[in-house]
Amino acid sequence: MRELEERIIKDGRSIGSGIVKVDGFLNHQLDTGLIMRMGEEFARLFAGSGANKIFTVESSGIAIALAAAVSMGDLPVVYAKKSVPSTMSEFYSTAVHSFTKNVDNTVIVSRSFIGSGDRLLIIDDFLATGSAGLGLVDLARQAGAEIVGFGAAIEKTEQGGRKALEDLGIEVRSLAVIASIEDGNIIFNH
Amino acid sequence: MRELEERIIKDGRSIGSGIVKVDGFLNHQLDTGLIMRMGEEFARLFAGSGANKIFTVESSGIAIALAAAVSMGDLPVVYAKKSVPSTMSEFYSTAVHSFTKNVDNTVIVSRSFIGSGDRLLIIDDFLATGSAGLGLVDLARQAGAEIVGFGAAIEKTEQGGRKALEDLGIEVRSLAVIASIEDGNIIFNH
Repeated sequence: MRELEERIIKDGRSIGSGIVKVDGFLNHQLDTGLIMRMGEEFARLFAGSGANKIFTVESSGIAIALAAAVSMGDLPVVYAKKSVPSTMSEFYSTAVHSFTKNVDNTVIVSRSFIGSGDRLLIIDDFLATGSAGLGLVDLARQAGAEIVGFGAAIEKTEQGGRKALEDLGIEVRSLAVIASIEDGNIIFNH
Repeated sequence: MRELEERIIKDGRSIGSGIVKVDGFLNHQLDTGLIMRMGEEFARLFAGSGANKIFTVESSGIAIALAAAVSMGDLPVVYAKKSVPSTMSEFYSTAVHSFTKNVDNTVIVSRSFIGSGDRLLIIDDFLATGSAGLGLVDLARQAGAEIVGFGAAIEKTEQGGRKALEDLGIEVRSLAVIASIEDGNIIFNH
């Protein structure tokens, strides 16, 4: 998605360790128009998926998942949570390693909201090592749901997440694919 | 907003201690169509506010803030965070007491995204004691931003949050106002 690539080059900042900071438009401040157009692009990429629900994880997946859901005919969105609400008793849980914080987090989803009848399109902001994505896949499989695709806003292919998901038979599509970062310059794959 | 009230009655669950669970459509699973119509209603209520940016807090504020931003002409959204990213150095911070979890949390926002030129419309899912709302107000004031209104999806008036905000001169509008919960029955104010 050219608009997203151009925005990453303009406002994204490479801050070492392969991390690109996009908090000016994607995960702290949101460029609402861009987010909604990203949703349209996800809808185009997964038009034939037969998804009945979008599945993501708080917090940075929520906005793009909602945008995709709007463009796919107001599908429901379910977002996995990083802490267990005091009001929730029945849930699936899995461990996710955070690449930027270097800690393991537990991620959960209520048993009420995903199940064996569901065809889930998983959407997340980043696909790097695939840890968050594989966590969502694990939750979906615990629930007996089918996974019809995985959409990432920004992918860093060399970190292995795409391969890990494709090895599980999951179709992966990303809006912007970063091939490498050299001397602070971001190189995209098309 | 009648649609939201009817949905709270249909799918919300009073689970004691004045807590109404709305995770089936508002803060774990999202009813995308309802969320976008809530955004339209916020836009109508704050049409004359002159807001240039929507300010909320992760995670449950993000979807309705984005929906309001879309209906107000693709305004930017900034969401405060409950943990400090390893990649962020300059931020405002404040303490917020969580009513449901009975703990104090630190909430932060980057100094890059709100400032003295901003006219912020604050949006959040719940207004009860006002703790989260007052935390956002404190962050906005540290940044020197003007607050042009406070919009809540669901307000529980008797818990004092509305009065605390109005005492600071802030206009408060809510989409559904719960007057009381009696024997599990939810009574609305209109």
